Amino acid sequence: MKLPIKVVLIVSLLFTASFSQEKVYKLKLATTWGPTLSPLIDSAKNMAAMAKKMSNGRLIIKIDASNKHKAPLGILDMVKGGHYDMGHSASYYWKGKDIATLPFTSMPFGLTAPEQYAWFYYGGGLELMQKVYSKHKVLSFPGGSTGVQMGGWFKKEIKTLDDLKGLKMRIPGFAGEIMANLGVQVTNIAPGELYTALERNNLDALEWVGPSMDINMGFHKIASFYYTGWHEPASEMQFIVNKKTFNKLPADLQEILRVSMRLAAYDMYAQNYDMNATAWDKIKADFPDIKVKTFPKEIMDAMKKANKELRTSLSAKSFELKEVLDSQDAYIKKARAWSQMSDFLYIKDNIQ
Amino acid sequence: MKLPIKVVLIVSLLFTASFSQEKVYKLKLATTWGPTLSPLIDSAKNMAAMAKKMSNGRLIIKIDASNKHKAPLGILDMVKGGHYDMGHSASYYWKGKDIATLPFTSMPFGLTAPEQYAWFYYGGGLELMQKVYSKHKVLSFPGGSTGVQMGGWFKKEIKTLDDLKGLKMRIPGFAGEIMANLGVQVTNIAPGELYTALERNNLDALEWVGPSMDINMGFHKIASFYYTGWHEPASEMQFIVNKKTFNKLPADLQEILRVSMRLAAYDMYAQNYDMNATAWDKIKADFPDIKVKTFPKEIMDAMKKANKELRTSLSAKSFELKEVLDSQDAYIKKARAWSQMSDFLYIKDNIQ
Repeated sequence: MKLPIKVVLIVSLLFTASFSQEKVYKLKLATTWGPTLSPLIDSAKNMAAMAKKMSNGRLIIKIDASNKHKAPLGILDMVKGGHYDMGHSASYYWKGKDIATLPFTSMPFGLTAPEQYAWFYYGGGLELMQKVYSKHKVLSFPGGSTGVQMGGWFKKEIKTLDDLKGLKMRIPGFAGEIMANLGVQVTNIAPGELYTALERNNLDALEWVGPSMDINMGFHKIASFYYTGWHEPASEMQFIVNKKTFNKLPADLQEILRVSMRLAAYDMYAQNYDMNATAWDKIKADFPDIKVKTFPKEIMDAMKKANKELRTSLSAKSFELKEVLDSQDAYIKKARAWSQMSDFLYIKDNIQ
Repeated sequence: MKLPIKVVLIVSLLFTASFSQEKVYKLKLATTWGPTLSPLIDSAKNMAAMAKKMSNGRLIIKIDASNKHKAPLGILDMVKGGHYDMGHSASYYWKGKDIATLPFTSMPFGLTAPEQYAWFYYGGGLELMQKVYSKHKVLSFPGGSTGVQMGGWFKKEIKTLDDLKGLKMRIPGFAGEIMANLGVQVTNIAPGELYTALERNNLDALEWVGPSMDINMGFHKIASFYYTGWHEPASEMQFIVNKKTFNKLPADLQEILRVSMRLAAYDMYAQNYDMNATAWDKIKADFPDIKVKTFPKEIMDAMKKANKELRTSLSAKSFELKEVLDSQDAYIKKARAWSQMSDFLYIKDNIQ
């Protein structure tokens, strides 16, 4: 059989095209955050941009912010159910469904950010997280640390435990339960109404994040006491990936996804450190009368006692939670000794 | 013209093979470290492993440790000259060639690791580093932080400035110059001979790294006073890449390389945090009499004064150095305020 040269070339080109055209994987990611909520949303955007560039366009991750999917606290369900391939949120939002997910964000009086990254990646934390999440059919990874979250804005100074009795404060979640134990009237108010509530004394105090995100809320204009952190010493955000989706990716794209998430998480920590430093510098300059305060020992001791009791009662109901808390406690014991003799004693002699 | 079907198929296959067979880039990297010196060498190995996996074998980085190339302190020259494509080392090793490279590792009384990462990536540090290194025709990136390096092992307690006069100490580089200013007899001894020199009192004190790397040297068996850090609060290692090599890579491999280096750097910081915590835990248990000490205020003040004078005299000779130091000073001012009100005050109330 003989064929004309034109046919030869066409056949050749078709063969070539079919081999060199590689499959493009398009994933959809849902975030808890609004489309411009820095630095939280930036972690997801940074991750998607790296994955696209490193894969030469073979891995495309489209981000839907909360204004699109309207279910900011439904991320785990949507990824588990396959409506989304990925999510960016925070593990402690699922504590109502699965109490063992609570400690992967941050625990009161728990690990600091450097300690927590060491625990996740070199102290067994990531393996425990995958174990807890395996029943939800998703993989879970660190998604960016805010570092220490501040204790909140107070309109009056808190000197004794009595000053907390009946105080109207917005502080959600596990920390809110501790505050309620100390007599605080814990109030839930939508974020958009917080400023007005604080201004009109419908709230006496509130907890948000830290300078980087508090500054846009304007609380520093109407409350003069900014308390240091105790309840979220290193809140780590979370990436989740539907297990089936992940398993379908070729090995190189799996690694590109893993690396992009891990780097985006660390980067968010550094970005937020910079944002906190810059925001606090501005707040201090514009409102020099604001006082940074630490809760007195009497209050701190009562918080620690309430924290311990709550943890014990929750652990009694969930062996899985207990396993994670025990791992963190053992890690704090050795990592804190190092934190104290390294950064802590260094900064003590180099206060600016 | 007519061709037989066999020829058609062969031509087709050749076309296909030439298009789908993608070019493999093989780079050679030289490190300052020996082949098993954890965690320093692990940063380079981790980087190369990620790059290979993410590129599906298209980017292969072969690592030569110092036992291979025999020039541990010649990395910049070898990469600049094209004998190697990449290097993993520390920027302050080149201060004799270019004084402006000094501050990218760590400066006495300078930035801590979280502050320094924020400065590099969000505070203009990386741009300054590329500017300084552009005359050497290499790109330079952070390569992993040791965090705080300890002030060293001393056989006797240091109570006054007089105790430093004539003290025989191994402490190289810029920190050694400060110590010499305080009357210390700064001695240079090869690493392999340090233990014996300390044991036989040919040395009274020495500085190495921190618990993670000191433990294998055994100094804790023969010196009882472990002083906290002041001279290298966050020593950042360094990746360098020959600019021509980098520019020849396709865009996806450039991004894979950039991301692999950046993640390997952060990972080394977390790995070393874990190693420090674990090593110190063991040293404390085995040698409970070892005392962690901070230099008294009189000595710390003298060190700060000598540091300031040395910086001023070096800055007078190099505008480029001054530009980097000024940028770090300005950044410390705002970042330290945040470090103090966040991790520092948190740890103060949560000593273990």
